[in-house]
Amino acid sequence: MAHEDARDGARQGQKVSLTGIKPTGEPHLGNYIGAIRPALEMASSYESIYFIADYHALTSVRDRASLAGWTRSVGATWVALGLDPKQTIFYRQSDVPEIFELTWVLSCVTGKGLMNRAHAYKAARDRNAEAGIADLDAGINMGLFNYPVLMAVDILIMNADVVPVGQDQVQHLEIAADVAGSFNHLFGDVYALKIPEAVTPPGDTGRVLPGLDGRKMSKSYGNTIPLFAPEARLRKLVRSIKSDSTPVEEPKAPDTSAAFQLYENFATPGDVADMRRRLEAGGTGWGELKNALFEAINTRLTPLRERYEELMVPGSELDTILADGAEQARDRARPVLAGVRRAIGIDAL
Amino acid sequence: MAHEDARDGARQGQKVSLTGIKPTGEPHLGNYIGAIRPALEMASSYESIYFIADYHALTSVRDRASLAGWTRSVGATWVALGLDPKQTIFYRQSDVPEIFELTWVLSCVTGKGLMNRAHAYKAARDRNAEAGIADLDAGINMGLFNYPVLMAVDILIMNADVVPVGQDQVQHLEIAADVAGSFNHLFGDVYALKIPEAVTPPGDTGRVLPGLDGRKMSKSYGNTIPLFAPEARLRKLVRSIKSDSTPVEEPKAPDTSAAFQLYENFATPGDVADMRRRLEAGGTGWGELKNALFEAINTRLTPLRERYEELMVPGSELDTILADGAEQARDRARPVLAGVRRAIGIDAL
Repeated sequence: MAHEDARDGARQGQKVSLTGIKPTGEPHLGNYIGAIRPALEMASSYESIYFIADYHALTSVRDRASLAGWTRSVGATWVALGLDPKQTIFYRQSDVPEIFELTWVLSCVTGKGLMNRAHAYKAARDRNAEAGIADLDAGINMGLFNYPVLMAVDILIMNADVVPVGQDQVQHLEIAADVAGSFNHLFGDVYALKIPEAVTPPGDTGRVLPGLDGRKMSKSYGNTIPLFAPEARLRKLVRSIKSDSTPVEEPKAPDTSAAFQLYENFATPGDVADMRRRLEAGGTGWGELKNALFEAINTRLTPLRERYEELMVPGSELDTILADGAEQARDRARPVLAGVRRAIGIDAL
Repeated sequence: MAHEDARDGARQGQKVSLTGIKPTGEPHLGNYIGAIRPALEMASSYESIYFIADYHALTSVRDRASLAGWTRSVGATWVALGLDPKQTIFYRQSDVPEIFELTWVLSCVTGKGLMNRAHAYKAARDRNAEAGIADLDAGINMGLFNYPVLMAVDILIMNADVVPVGQDQVQHLEIAADVAGSFNHLFGDVYALKIPEAVTPPGDTGRVLPGLDGRKMSKSYGNTIPLFAPEARLRKLVRSIKSDSTPVEEPKAPDTSAAFQLYENFATPGDVADMRRRLEAGGTGWGELKNALFEAINTRLTPLRERYEELMVPGSELDTILADGAEQARDRARPVLAGVRRAIGIDAL
């Protein structure tokens, strides 16, 4: 029935894409290359919406200063890296109360079996089993168990057409489509939710950035380089990247080097080709590569870091951006919730 | 550490009691005697809050006209029976969006194990087991699984001191206290939720009203007498109450008679004593008792039925009462949610 409403915003005809970012740590270089840059490229071909999923973070973050700090940091990072609040909508999940009311509604049309099969929940049970804990639900909170419903609502309430996802998130989209389908089956004669589709972000090369120890850069490995570390700390971290003990004068295999893989992502193609030749020829040490890597990263990040630090100040432009974004997001959310309420018989006394 | 705020309203010093009513059917005489009358008597000793739990009904009601109709009917019934909107707060759950945001927050501090053990969920699994269904979660939706968290929030967000409960609801209060305790343990240094207590309603005699077939009057037995049935239908229903075949002239045992038990609840004590004597003496038939019962019920309900029918009209005073109630309820809910947000680190960017 009803995909009219105030749903189609400024950019008529373009499909709407939605990206959520969970503030559970300081953004690092791996996030930038693997997730943020591809997600920002969505804005060139879609009407793009981004949000900070602070209430998702609450399923695991118990420290108020961390949650508040990481939320601000995620906001400042994405804007510093090029998220354009004039061309996109950018908001905090917690600023859109309509999301939580719709979460209750859609939980009533979501089979518990669907949640029993959700990956994150099953992984938490598996960890309990491996640890020899008899109660497989031990330590699992209802936020973790429910979060696929919240994630479905994040998408459905924005009336999004597509959601850029990595392979590990395909199930989330399937669940969102299932939940919307259940609602539409029961109530679609009055109001139908749009069924979202998963897409691969256009800039997603599938490339994984190595961390300090050569494994995938990941907070859980403790091997990250923060995106906006101060210069001195950045230099120190780059110098600590693991390398083999090939002497300076000998030829080296660049593709086995974590530092070189990082260099490929931050230096110009010409500089990368030049460095590859010099390493393969011998006479260029890993230390020299790391110095060049530091310069490449630092040159790229210095102006962004300045912008980031401006935005990190409480009361800065970031606050205005997110407040404006929240208004735009609520303008999209309200008619969806209103349609749902009409369909279930809640609105009319 | 905050039980200040705008929490203590007009009636300083009195404890606050909260009663929720799930609109899942037409109110009947059994509801009146067993639940509504005792709940309304709370208002004489507590600052009393009542709400229509329409979003709880959504876990089972799939028909929009029924949900809307029963919601209005519950509202009209309680006001007609004496709920005084000047002395109490009366609102629809769905008019207080703060409830659903807090539901998400508290789900994040609620162990899944607590929900696994909730009676209604376990009963639904037992029914599947008895029906030989292998998947014990079949047909169970996440609303049903989550509802004890929503019920906890209903109580906690109103900062209620006590909740009048029957024996079958004691677990709900225990869960609400558990959930509040978990929150306070994690975040109580900044904001603490009030731990509610269960009380027995002062007018609750524990008496069960019999239905048409002599079993407890209950929608699930299909043996109810609707509170506000039109007169002709009321008469017909009263006449259909099951009675034994003792001839008119023989002595009768009033206490075995469903009609007499109903009469005890609606006639004056003098009339009840008189009828008892006449039945025990013989010469008075069940038909005569039923005529007297009809008159007693009808005399009591006629003025209330008129008020009920006024309130059932869309746009009637009921709409104003519930709109005013929603404002008062939100005035209570906002500072609680604000305190919670401050405590978890959501509010401050």
